[in-house]
Amino acid sequence: MRLTKFSDYSLRVLMYAAASGERLATIDAAAAAYGVSRAHLTKIVTTLVRGGFLEGVRGRSGGFRLARPAAEIRLGDVLRLTEPDFDMVECFATGESCVVSGCCRLPRVMQQGLDAFLAVFDGVTLADVALAPDAFLPPQARAAGRPASGPAGAG
Amino acid sequence: MRLTKFSDYSLRVLMYAAASGERLATIDAAAAAYGVSRAHLTKIVTTLVRGGFLEGVRGRSGGFRLARPAAEIRLGDVLRLTEPDFDMVECFATGESCVVSGCCRLPRVMQQGLDAFLAVFDGVTLADVALAPDAFLPPQARAAGRPASGPAGAG
Repeated sequence: MRLTKFSDYSLRVLMYAAASGERLATIDAAAAAYGVSRAHLTKIVTTLVRGGFLEGVRGRSGGFRLARPAAEIRLGDVLRLTEPDFDMVECFATGESCVVSGCCRLPRVMQQGLDAFLAVFDGVTLADVALAPDAFLPPQARAAGRPASGPAGAG
Repeated sequence: MRLTKFSDYSLRVLMYAAASGERLATIDAAAAAYGVSRAHLTKIVTTLVRGGFLEGVRGRSGGFRLARPAAEIRLGDVLRLTEPDFDMVECFATGESCVVSGCCRLPRVMQQGLDAFLAVFDGVTLADVALAPDAFLPPQARAAGRPASGPAGAG
């Protein structure tokens, strides 16, 4: 059982934006910090902007920042946006494909398990998992106190 | 977020065995009832026998049945056997691959979410989701009261 890589990195992008505070973070810097492709993070930032979690600013000096305070961003709501489905088992996705559909009690257990999982994430906000800007510097830069590749605001 | 098809059908095979009671269920009949391949169910039955949930009987009149009472089979324990991993996010699987590994608070939230999910399944036994044998008959046979392709004990 896994979250998609898309959800995983969506949470990371939000953590990166939280560390940047009011200053604009850039996709290039976030991609460099996490060691992933710019293209992958671009899709994620676009989704998070559409979902109302990030504010995007276009142009050469553009970038992204949180659209609301970190304390108002529930991680459960982020996962509801970024996970393509919560179809825990086949019959959730396909409907009446199983001989015992209609009397089977497993879907209810699955739903309860999923609800319990999401309830944990609904009880945690981005502020609860936010890190200081220098957490995003490479270890050697962190040791030397260099702000070069961390989120804006790291210096 | 999904369980594997292997876990999904493992739970279904156990439900089928529960409906068969003391009489031996066969892979052929279970595969026919669920409309899936014999090969897929054979792997599942082998895993469930190894895991101590099913007892397998070899030979021409062989088959499988529950190795312990349904009320003693917790669905959480079944998932722990059948899910290949519970590595919710990349860093669970790969370790120190992320710049914020070491100070990141997300893994703890992920673990809490997963624990909450499994706690629901630990609170449910196979007896709680067991069905009557005729639930596994095709609808038309159920209406006519024919026991032909249901689990042993359906007649």
